[in-house]
Amino acid sequence: MTTDPIRIGIVTVSDRASSGVYQDQGGPAIRAALEKILATPWEALCCVIPDEQPEVEATLKDLCDMQGCCLVVTTGGTGPAPRDITPEATSAVCDKILDGFGEQMRAVSLKVVPTAILSRQIAGIRGKTLIINLPGKPSSINDCLQAVLPAVPYCIDLIGGPYLETHPEILTAFRPKKQ
Amino acid sequence: MTTDPIRIGIVTVSDRASSGVYQDQGGPAIRAALEKILATPWEALCCVIPDEQPEVEATLKDLCDMQGCCLVVTTGGTGPAPRDITPEATSAVCDKILDGFGEQMRAVSLKVVPTAILSRQIAGIRGKTLIINLPGKPSSINDCLQAVLPAVPYCIDLIGGPYLETHPEILTAFRPKKQ
Amino acid sequence: MTTDPIRIGIVTVSDRASSGVYQDQGGPAIRAALEKILATPWEALCCVIPDEQPEVEATLKDLCDMQGCCLVVTTGGTGPAPRDITPEATSAVCDKILDGFGEQMRAVSLKVVPTAILSRQIAGIRGKTLIINLPGKPSSINDCLQAVLPAVPYCIDLIGGPYLETHPEILTAFRPKKQ
Repeated sequence: MTTDPIRIGIVTVSDRASSGVYQDQGGPAIRAALEKILATPWEALCCVIPDEQPEVEATLKDLCDMQGCCLVVTTGGTGPAPRDITPEATSAVCDKILDGFGEQMRAVSLKVVPTAILSRQIAGIRGKTLIINLPGKPSSINDCLQAVLPAVPYCIDLIGGPYLETHPEILTAFRPKKQ
Repeated sequence: MTTDPIRIGIVTVSDRASSGVYQDQGGPAIRAALEKILATPWEALCCVIPDEQPEVEATLKDLCDMQGCCLVVTTGGTGPAPRDITPEATSAVCDKILDGFGEQMRAVSLKVVPTAILSRQIAGIRGKTLIINLPGKPSSINDCLQAVLPAVPYCIDLIGGPYLETHPEILTAFRPKKQ
Repeated sequence: MTTDPIRIGIVTVSDRASSGVYQDQGGPAIRAALEKILATPWEALCCVIPDEQPEVEATLKDLCDMQGCCLVVTTGGTGPAPRDITPEATSAVCDKILDGFGEQMRAVSLKVVPTAILSRQIAGIRGKTLIINLPGKPSSINDCLQAVLPAVPYCIDLIGGPYLETHPEILTAFRPKKQ
């Protein structure tokens, strides 16, 4: 089983994308970015679901507990509007919240748009899975992934997940030297 | 009713200002700053109340739910002292907290004073109202307003409030282009 | 009693250091840093305990409530791993959390390592005591102390603690002028 590719969940949270009003752009943008960055063989488990908190929670739990994803990345639903519930769902299923991810993603997004402070995106740990909320827009997705991904492989080491490697010419995974 | 001026609540939270020991400076500073910035006709609903959590909560609820304010701005009561309870009262009445506001206000205040890390100011959404905690000092109020106000009109759009316009030569409200 | 030296608690949270697998380095690093910085006479109350939330909570309560520490500094246990519970224990015993400390400590650590976003370190107030989580590594401890210590004496003033003075050639304690 250890020779199977690692699994990464990609969850698009969007009423409109899930009902077919428009095509999901966030999920494919995340997949394309991770394909460039990751050197370790991996497979994507992709879902497109509406902005319903119970459904988002159930999807996250399934990807973490049943599908064995070491990383789950969401896109969409992090704003201040009433239907934006991705951070609430993420928080509800996580054991620990890592405030540094949200802070850092907002800090890099703020260099582009002042409305970055409206994003409530968080990251947290559920068991042996790291869950990260990304924004909905493909351009912001890339900025945020670049900002936090160097710390992701070491985080997954610390929670007992698989050893992820990146293509260093694209992005360097940082691991501190052992004490 | 839609031609009425929009309403903005300005709440000074201070034992001393509310008991007349000294004159409220924070409330008038906020009002003066908003008068310079906002182009949309608006009226201010001003209150000066003591640092009592039930009273702050009741005032915020009234301004949001009964008075129809699209924005409520507080000043004072955000520090670490036992009587500082403005963030607790704000959090208690909000549906969603927008961590980016507090982060950004502290980041700009930190450029002025290292004690900015002691400020617990937050912002959040209650129904169709955005509530923002500002510090007590008039000079810090201006720094914080400048830092977050570019994102405020779009935030109010997203929660179903009125369309706010600013004087662009003073401060530009940022609205992302529709996808 | 007011002429007694002020008391500062230094708590090393580490399964391995508390069981003797290796020697505590974080606690002595904090003590050495504070000895350089503080001009006010003080005594250190040092403990080395395992990563058990009830034990960390009990130790913090004792140092705050029984030993009369005005400041308690922890080292270790702030990461994403399952045994890392120092922030949870700190949050459980505090009346107020000061988000600015964690934000600022992560911001300075991020200049050194991208994995700084994995740190969940917080600070908060319990009664008349300020509790600050520092990381486990001696080099990061110093960066974080330098980043937040200028605000610590004024914070302790505000919560009714003793008047701390620093050696200004090492680090300047900032106190805003009275209004």
